[in-house]
Amino acid sequence: MSAETPYFGPAYEYEIDPAFRPSFLNLERDAPSLPVQPGIVIRPVLGQRLNMNFVYFEPRTVAPVHQHREEQLGTILEGSLQFELAGETRTLRPGDVYVVPPDVPHGAVTGEEGCIVLDVFSPPREGLRELVERAGDQGSAEV
Amino acid sequence: MSAETPYFGPAYEYEIDPAFRPSFLNLERDAPSLPVQPGIVIRPVLGQRLNMNFVYFEPRTVAPVHQHREEQLGTILEGSLQFELAGETRTLRPGDVYVVPPDVPHGAVTGEEGCIVLDVFSPPREGLRELVERAGDQGSAEV
Repeated sequence: MSAETPYFGPAYEYEIDPAFRPSFLNLERDAPSLPVQPGIVIRPVLGQRLNMNFVYFEPRTVAPVHQHREEQLGTILEGSLQFELAGETRTLRPGDVYVVPPDVPHGAVTGEEGCIVLDVFSPPREGLRELVERAGDQGSAEV
Repeated sequence: MSAETPYFGPAYEYEIDPAFRPSFLNLERDAPSLPVQPGIVIRPVLGQRLNMNFVYFEPRTVAPVHQHREEQLGTILEGSLQFELAGETRTLRPGDVYVVPPDVPHGAVTGEEGCIVLDVFSPPREGLRELVERAGDQGSAEV
């Protein structure tokens, strides 16, 4: 990313791992829609070292304060919510990001408007792969 | 995430790591704006195991096909682009996601409209932390 490691660096030999293939997905078509709490549905996309969860909050919905071992970054895609992180609460909108190190308590509440959030986790959120497998294949369009 | 591991599980004791504090950031205020290629600017947000790059493409811009060791997931936030992944090209719009395992070549081209993409990497993209540090502090609002 410096002159020595440019962002778009030179090519090198590679092989595709049959257990982890490149793929294109459309969220509505390919990602399962999983209810995790009244008023909250997630659409997960799984990698091996990380995963995305697109999180759809209805208005006046509570994601209770909780903790997990995985590191989490998140951002607001649409709408707004009140986000509580380590005891401090902020109103977040598109353009806002939160950084949740492992084990740090966090939660969220929506008001009169709903909210769509994108959360990313590393490693993938515990138990998520099993939940997706129970819901059916990820249905990705492998290339 | 099952009945035994609910998505919002029970509380447990924790300590905040002084080297990795929870934080709120606003992209425009707190994330450096780094040009990586003519017509392409990134705003990175760094964790320890993963990072987000918000990527702003001007119209008629090329992100050359490239490879890297980090696993990458990405999604389109605004606009559209042609994304090439392991030799296959698709037109992607909001709601579309790509999964790029380590080392798999990929690139993108915008047409008459620009595009905003969110890419996430694990581990954080090599060289990115140094680039951010040279650009100044991440400026996060720690809680």
